[in-house]
Amino acid sequence: MTHEFSLRTSGAGLYEFTQDVARWLSAVDGPRDGLLTLFVRHTSCSLIIQENADPEVQSDLRAFFDRLVPPSTHASMSYLRHTYEGPDDMPAHIKATLMPVSLSIPVAQGRMVLGTWQGIYLFEHRTAPHTRRVAAHLG
Amino acid sequence: MTHEFSLRTSGAGLYEFTQDVARWLSAVDGPRDGLLTLFVRHTSCSLIIQENADPEVQSDLRAFFDRLVPPSTHASMSYLRHTYEGPDDMPAHIKATLMPVSLSIPVAQGRMVLGTWQGIYLFEHRTAPHTRRVAAHLG
Amino acid sequence: MTHEFSLRTSGAGLYEFTQDVARWLSAVDGPRDGLLTLFVRHTSCSLIIQENADPEVQSDLRAFFDRLVPPSTHASMSYLRHTYEGPDDMPAHIKATLMPVSLSIPVAQGRMVLGTWQGIYLFEHRTAPHTRRVAAHLG
Repeated sequence: MTHEFSLRTSGAGLYEFTQDVARWLSAVDGPRDGLLTLFVRHTSCSLIIQENADPEVQSDLRAFFDRLVPPSTHASMSYLRHTYEGPDDMPAHIKATLMPVSLSIPVAQGRMVLGTWQGIYLFEHRTAPHTRRVAAHLG
Repeated sequence: MTHEFSLRTSGAGLYEFTQDVARWLSAVDGPRDGLLTLFVRHTSCSLIIQENADPEVQSDLRAFFDRLVPPSTHASMSYLRHTYEGPDDMPAHIKATLMPVSLSIPVAQGRMVLGTWQGIYLFEHRTAPHTRRVAAHLG
Repeated sequence: MTHEFSLRTSGAGLYEFTQDVARWLSAVDGPRDGLLTLFVRHTSCSLIIQENADPEVQSDLRAFFDRLVPPSTHASMSYLRHTYEGPDDMPAHIKATLMPVSLSIPVAQGRMVLGTWQGIYLFEHRTAPHTRRVAAHLG
């Protein structure tokens, strides 16, 4: 079974879509036990699994990665050459290399075996709004 | 075929469980050729594959990540807000975002196609002892 | 269906092999819709998906990771202990921990659902030439 999730982003940050995935899983006529794979079809955003209890975890994650990979206008990043798509573009590619492009999650009795605090997020690294496509495979 | 490995940790560091996985694979009545997926059900530890020959590789990995993401009490991390679960908690979430939550390894003739030096590790990022659950799927 | 790609590298850098994978997929007598998994059988190189339009993205990625994880002869890395395999060896293990060892890509109608700009790369972290084996599973 395959599907494509379409997610609208409005700037850099984490966008949780755990419930969208869970709803698709419960509606789809696929195996009750299997493996779910999510794959993001872009090179400037990521798929991550992180705590979904305290929103400060999300803002702290953003703060860390923004310090590790600042905009290309920042003095420490003056070595970057791919700058013509904006100061947030090459850092977005770097962040997308540091974080997953695909996630594989076992499914048991129709539900992902996520831990209690685990949520699925699209991590948008670009500043401008985007529509992000995430391919899903259940097998 | 699914399984859950339960791993006891006693502080931050790498815990190899390659042999636990190999033993399960050799005992299970699943496909001889397929795909093994491991998924850790937590947001403050990681699953990695690394060299299992020289133990100094493991201590060097820890040293690198502890310098890249020091405790939240460290001056360089004073921007962190999620600190009430202890100085090692938010850094653990960051490390868990920098390293895999899931690993997929092809299986041929009942054995993982690991390279000669590849071992499977749980990388514990928390200081206190934990029991970590790793879901396995063989399909 | 399984396969092994063999890739020759001649120093650190990104080596695209998207077309090798696409050719194998189009020739193989496997499922037209399924999941492709690539797994690199080494601990000092990585598999990544990144933009394949502007080559400067690739050189900028290298530049970033070489600054984040300099050779063990660099003053900032003097804490490393695993140095007897050369100044590029332990940094290679660290980079291989920061980037994926496996990638999972859904396949629809015999083709990977890669986005327009997504290419598949072996990221070689060692300086000396190597032959790198990448196991593929299509299920």
